[in-house]
Amino acid sequence: MSSKGKVCLAYSGGLDTSTILRWLIDSGYEVVCFLADVGQEEDWDQVRSKAAKIGALKMVITDLRKEFVEELCFRAVQCNAQYEGTYLLGTSLARPVIARAQMKVAAEEGCQYVSHGCTGKGNDQVRFELAFLTIDPKIKVIAPWRMKEFFERFQGRNDLLDYAAKSGIPVTSTKAKPYSMDDNIAHCSYESGQLEDPSQPPPTDMWTRTDDPITAPNTPQDIAIQFEKGIPVKLTADGKDITDSLDLFIALNAIGKKHGVGRIDIVENRFIGIKSRGCYDSPAMTILRAAHLDLEGLVLDGKVRSLRDQFVTHAWSEILYNGLYFSPEREFVENSVIFSQKRVNGEVRLRLYKGNTFITGRSSETEKLYSEEESSMDSLIDFSPTDTSGFININAIRLKKYGAQKLEEGQGLGA
Amino acid sequence: MSSKGKVCLAYSGGLDTSTILRWLIDSGYEVVCFLADVGQEEDWDQVRSKAAKIGALKMVITDLRKEFVEELCFRAVQCNAQYEGTYLLGTSLARPVIARAQMKVAAEEGCQYVSHGCTGKGNDQVRFELAFLTIDPKIKVIAPWRMKEFFERFQGRNDLLDYAAKSGIPVTSTKAKPYSMDDNIAHCSYESGQLEDPSQPPPTDMWTRTDDPITAPNTPQDIAIQFEKGIPVKLTADGKDITDSLDLFIALNAIGKKHGVGRIDIVENRFIGIKSRGCYDSPAMTILRAAHLDLEGLVLDGKVRSLRDQFVTHAWSEILYNGLYFSPEREFVENSVIFSQKRVNGEVRLRLYKGNTFITGRSSETEKLYSEEESSMDSLIDFSPTDTSGFININAIRLKKYGAQKLEEGQGLGA
Amino acid sequence: MSSKGKVCLAYSGGLDTSTILRWLIDSGYEVVCFLADVGQEEDWDQVRSKAAKIGALKMVITDLRKEFVEELCFRAVQCNAQYEGTYLLGTSLARPVIARAQMKVAAEEGCQYVSHGCTGKGNDQVRFELAFLTIDPKIKVIAPWRMKEFFERFQGRNDLLDYAAKSGIPVTSTKAKPYSMDDNIAHCSYESGQLEDPSQPPPTDMWTRTDDPITAPNTPQDIAIQFEKGIPVKLTADGKDITDSLDLFIALNAIGKKHGVGRIDIVENRFIGIKSRGCYDSPAMTILRAAHLDLEGLVLDGKVRSLRDQFVTHAWSEILYNGLYFSPEREFVENSVIFSQKRVNGEVRLRLYKGNTFITGRSSETEKLYSEEESSMDSLIDFSPTDTSGFININAIRLKKYGAQKLEEGQGLGA
Amino acid sequence: MSSKGKVCLAYSGGLDTSTILRWLIDSGYEVVCFLADVGQEEDWDQVRSKAAKIGALKMVITDLRKEFVEELCFRAVQCNAQYEGTYLLGTSLARPVIARAQMKVAAEEGCQYVSHGCTGKGNDQVRFELAFLTIDPKIKVIAPWRMKEFFERFQGRNDLLDYAAKSGIPVTSTKAKPYSMDDNIAHCSYESGQLEDPSQPPPTDMWTRTDDPITAPNTPQDIAIQFEKGIPVKLTADGKDITDSLDLFIALNAIGKKHGVGRIDIVENRFIGIKSRGCYDSPAMTILRAAHLDLEGLVLDGKVRSLRDQFVTHAWSEILYNGLYFSPEREFVENSVIFSQKRVNGEVRLRLYKGNTFITGRSSETEKLYSEEESSMDSLIDFSPTDTSGFININAIRLKKYGAQKLEEGQGLGA
Repeated sequence: MSSKGKVCLAYSGGLDTSTILRWLIDSGYEVVCFLADVGQEEDWDQVRSKAAKIGALKMVITDLRKEFVEELCFRAVQCNAQYEGTYLLGTSLARPVIARAQMKVAAEEGCQYVSHGCTGKGNDQVRFELAFLTIDPKIKVIAPWRMKEFFERFQGRNDLLDYAAKSGIPVTSTKAKPYSMDDNIAHCSYESGQLEDPSQPPPTDMWTRTDDPITAPNTPQDIAIQFEKGIPVKLTADGKDITDSLDLFIALNAIGKKHGVGRIDIVENRFIGIKSRGCYDSPAMTILRAAHLDLEGLVLDGKVRSLRDQFVTHAWSEILYNGLYFSPEREFVENSVIFSQKRVNGEVRLRLYKGNTFITGRSSETEKLYSEEESSMDSLIDFSPTDTSGFININAIRLKKYGAQKLEEGQGLGA
Repeated sequence: MSSKGKVCLAYSGGLDTSTILRWLIDSGYEVVCFLADVGQEEDWDQVRSKAAKIGALKMVITDLRKEFVEELCFRAVQCNAQYEGTYLLGTSLARPVIARAQMKVAAEEGCQYVSHGCTGKGNDQVRFELAFLTIDPKIKVIAPWRMKEFFERFQGRNDLLDYAAKSGIPVTSTKAKPYSMDDNIAHCSYESGQLEDPSQPPPTDMWTRTDDPITAPNTPQDIAIQFEKGIPVKLTADGKDITDSLDLFIALNAIGKKHGVGRIDIVENRFIGIKSRGCYDSPAMTILRAAHLDLEGLVLDGKVRSLRDQFVTHAWSEILYNGLYFSPEREFVENSVIFSQKRVNGEVRLRLYKGNTFITGRSSETEKLYSEEESSMDSLIDFSPTDTSGFININAIRLKKYGAQKLEEGQGLGA
Repeated sequence: MSSKGKVCLAYSGGLDTSTILRWLIDSGYEVVCFLADVGQEEDWDQVRSKAAKIGALKMVITDLRKEFVEELCFRAVQCNAQYEGTYLLGTSLARPVIARAQMKVAAEEGCQYVSHGCTGKGNDQVRFELAFLTIDPKIKVIAPWRMKEFFERFQGRNDLLDYAAKSGIPVTSTKAKPYSMDDNIAHCSYESGQLEDPSQPPPTDMWTRTDDPITAPNTPQDIAIQFEKGIPVKLTADGKDITDSLDLFIALNAIGKKHGVGRIDIVENRFIGIKSRGCYDSPAMTILRAAHLDLEGLVLDGKVRSLRDQFVTHAWSEILYNGLYFSPEREFVENSVIFSQKRVNGEVRLRLYKGNTFITGRSSETEKLYSEEESSMDSLIDFSPTDTSGFININAIRLKKYGAQKLEEGQGLGA
Repeated sequence: MSSKGKVCLAYSGGLDTSTILRWLIDSGYEVVCFLADVGQEEDWDQVRSKAAKIGALKMVITDLRKEFVEELCFRAVQCNAQYEGTYLLGTSLARPVIARAQMKVAAEEGCQYVSHGCTGKGNDQVRFELAFLTIDPKIKVIAPWRMKEFFERFQGRNDLLDYAAKSGIPVTSTKAKPYSMDDNIAHCSYESGQLEDPSQPPPTDMWTRTDDPITAPNTPQDIAIQFEKGIPVKLTADGKDITDSLDLFIALNAIGKKHGVGRIDIVENRFIGIKSRGCYDSPAMTILRAAHLDLEGLVLDGKVRSLRDQFVTHAWSEILYNGLYFSPEREFVENSVIFSQKRVNGEVRLRLYKGNTFITGRSSETEKLYSEEESSMDSLIDFSPTDTSGFININAIRLKKYGAQKLEEGQGLGA
């Protein structure tokens, strides 16, 4: 049988993508497997040998950790990104670097198709495919979990196991978790299965990137983080300075893990309009966001901050969540993020303790918007108190008319 | 000497407002003192007798706690209010009810003037005076700390003490704290003095409304809060149900205090353009915000939430912080807050532990936007996976053009 | 053959929907035809007899003009609705009332299906179907122009004409226009065909709702419009007062037509991400928007206006354009529109002349935010010029720090 | 008498600033006069000799037209700037370049003070002084119209004339207009005096930068404007191409004047909270805004446009109106304006006729977001109609729940 063409498949080594790999081959495609290393826990060699055993032409594993941290995670920190008031976007942040790397492999290997194992109701399929199609408008996507011939054949775990047995797909004997996980250096996410009941807490042994705050050390740990232009450039902890971006992020993850920092459990609104329950633990991101937010208090102009909060932070977060990283609007908004950070330079000190990230101080050698002298209630240097009377009176011109209107309406504001 | 008129003075019993009281009388005014009970720690009888001793015509103390909680604190909860990403607005929330009550007393007592002891560089003078002038555009304000004849005479604590000694103003022997505090049922704020150095942590014995998380109980406490239209209507804790708004708030404060919940330490941007450092502990508000934010995930439409977050939450918070409660824009924005909450009904369960407010579950008997069935990745009831392909392809129409443009520019997105 | 079920078809009497009507019958459906009277030019009897001739069970024609004007057009006026800075949304405004009425007919006639003749690349299919599905989540939609069996069979006008000939569908002999039109009381839209080249002006004889400004009367016409709560309640023109909403709208259309008011020619962004060129003439809407916008200057608080412009006007317009009238977000935003209009009472006088709507005066008997006395540069009543110094100095606190920062950076702002 | 110091006075040659010049000298200051040429009609020599006669040390006149057009007017065009839905900001745009040039002169001449003749209730004093104080935080401002000793002495025109007579200030015999005007190349503004009654139209002979549309030519004129990155780079009119920025702007003003383009009459909200009535005629700006807005339809991504409209256009316009050009927020927002314009390249053709600016076509050689092929309703190239079904169905997931909720509430949306 002549080949239908070449597919670059996002392959994790799990039962789902192993089935897809075999099914694609059975369907007449040649398959190049791709796995991104974005910092997840993984037995890379096992994945590699499994792909070979099932019949992949090739298995490409790419270490994307540094670009993931520098291009996505740190950008999120710079804009205090947060979805729906809580979620630090760990999964959304990883998708663009993975999709871009997969498309590079697809191009290098001469693939006409890319494929993935995302289900048909989630955010990830949207994120991956919008990225694929934007990066190369001519690429063709095979999404088996949305294809009738695939999803009708494989209706449950048993169908997958049967097929694996018949097709010689090696199956790891470990019992499946009663929920699904997606791990990367920014966080681990947990959803589906028993988590679908939002009234029940997640199992206590679920979390992988954070220790339980209750059993976390009884002694707090003090650290310091230095920022340049809103980017973390130095972590001081345990008597050491770490300046390499990836090392710094990994070290923060370890420290945050130890102190149980960064667990959330939420119900969120997916792009496709379905509500879903997700749990996430993101130690480094949680610490960095808290530190950055605090530093901005010291060094960022208040009006710029207000405009940025309302517009840029909100828009960037939503764009990323919805999988629109490769878009003119992300580029447009991100340009503002970067511009806003020109003077976000300084150091923040934090105390980590059983789930908390307490700020214990902040300072900047270069930035001077904060002035002890000026903020002091006692000092009158360079300040005339009568000016404030004028400020109040002018602001009151408009308001007095409103008050008079209310009195006229018979419902005075003082009532 | 005939009276220059009648002044209604916001009188706290402290050295500053005692001096102002005496100084106003010396200047020829008759003075009615007013003190709002917004839940602060206070020796009410002592204040009363001190006012009489110094020469006040009358001392009016009004219990505003219930209206403060219901009209301001719960409204803030409904809109997840937060200033600059952290501050729960405790002081700002209290000002409107205090100003309104003071203006009522001024009207009842036939005062032509209102006066207060706020300093000339803070937010509170602006908040109080804008409220006064809006409620009654004809009222006249005496702000001694912005009057040359006053602030030049009283340049430090010693001048105040000298005057007190000469004028027979009783002085409490307690040593002044090295920072200033403002306490109400929503929070206690700490600023000025030694806190003016933002690089140093506050003294550990400073906090009054929260116990130290480190010495807080080693055993977590589970509570449940029920909301109707975004308003907390029942607290279940320690085996009891509390439904009265004020009782509920007080009980939450006590529980939060015990578990060290709600401390923040920030540098913020005052309305008048000065940066200042403030510390705040707000146990009940912190718990309520966390619970409400979580419940909205379950019951609020995602698009409404996004519009509300970007516009309403941001605007309401800034309006309140800037002292513009009595304004057409607050009324305009608050109308949206209330409308958005029509279906925010349900219960949230939380676990409090050493500074943390972990969500352990949420449910709603009436709201059905969340569906386990629907959100399940496995279920295909009422859902056609091929629809998602269409959704993605249509969303990609615009993006493909962007991708093609980038390729043409020679900087393809995949690079 | 037993019926496949009952369909309620949006039927216009044109070649497309006549073909669909016949094709549905041929396919085994019973068809109830529905036509909304939203003020378009139409030979109603001819449509009725044509439907009967082709085989419709029934033809229902509903006069929706009043609800269209009152619920949609006037709401648009209240919020100064405009899409992409120019387009007054005429088509988008009509869709919700039409869809709602069609669904009512579908329910009354016991139809399991609704159908329409919209093409697969436009906005209208989205608007209609989102409305259908929201009004009754169980309704089934038949969209022939998106069905392979239909669009492959009817690939051009000739295929439609052949089918008409074979099926006995009466065909009007009038030559098809080289563009498509959609007419309602709010506007007529023109797109497709020869208009697809955006570099060329539309044919001069295209416009139906406006006369050519060049041949319009050389004498201007003065009119006056009275608003209550932002709603037009009286038109004074040609010496007559018109107060009925529909009569007023129709009269304004006639006057605007005569003076060539309300033509635009734009390239717009469709919801599905395609750019398209459209021409629209909307005389009454153009005049009403100009008048309402002007009145708000006189009576609306400036800060409310600013918030409303940025958020409400923008959001409402986009929601309507995208076909999301029946949505929680439209309800949410519209609640703000209505609230903002409580005091928008007064009269605006306009002069219409060859395409222009010049404002010649505005006044309000009830609203007093504008005060000649106060706005007068000469008057100092109730105003202390020194207050402005304070206002400026306080606003400058923050800015001076910025200026100093720039000087330090070596790029002073004065350079 | 030794000098109190040196003042740089914004001097127009009119009665007000002539009085201020003399009064400053009488008060013991040395005065350097400054006049900016921002394109206003002026007898420069007469101003120069008048300043000398009254006693100025020096009279500096600087031609700022080119920087005014390039740095401010074109930036406004790039972001479609508009205040309160109508006003093109002509005055606000001129203030920054004038203030900056005056500060340069002040620095060169060693002045410790700057002074101006703005009244105490307007926007201009705020705009000028915020600019002065930001450019040089140490500069001192003398604002005579806000100084008691000045405004109590000069309470009306007669007081000024008396002083002029006594002090030998030359007075032009021309009768004062019954309103005040401020002219520059972007527009002429008219306010105060008889214009303070907003119910009356302005006098027909008031307008200076536009001819009366009624007597404007009966023959339309066609022109074309080419943009690069949102900046006008070529005007084709009367058979000639003009590419120099200033020449282009001047030519457009002349053409617009002839055809009566750009008159507005509004009630606006001043920064200080007072409503005021203003009339403005801005021919070139009106034409350029219309052309630019149209071109963006052809070449700007729809989502970027939406974000830009809501945030950037609104914020930039308000910042400029409020006199905050020299501010971190303007810098922040303007960075977005410029970024958004990278691909705004193309040509727009317009027809000017008796007050109208009709668009007659637009094209771009480099930009390809618009595609005739794609936008055509007939073409199915690269487009699968079934995709739209998926798009609609996915968008409906959320809406169906809303519809069901409404039905449950007993107020179904179809009612």
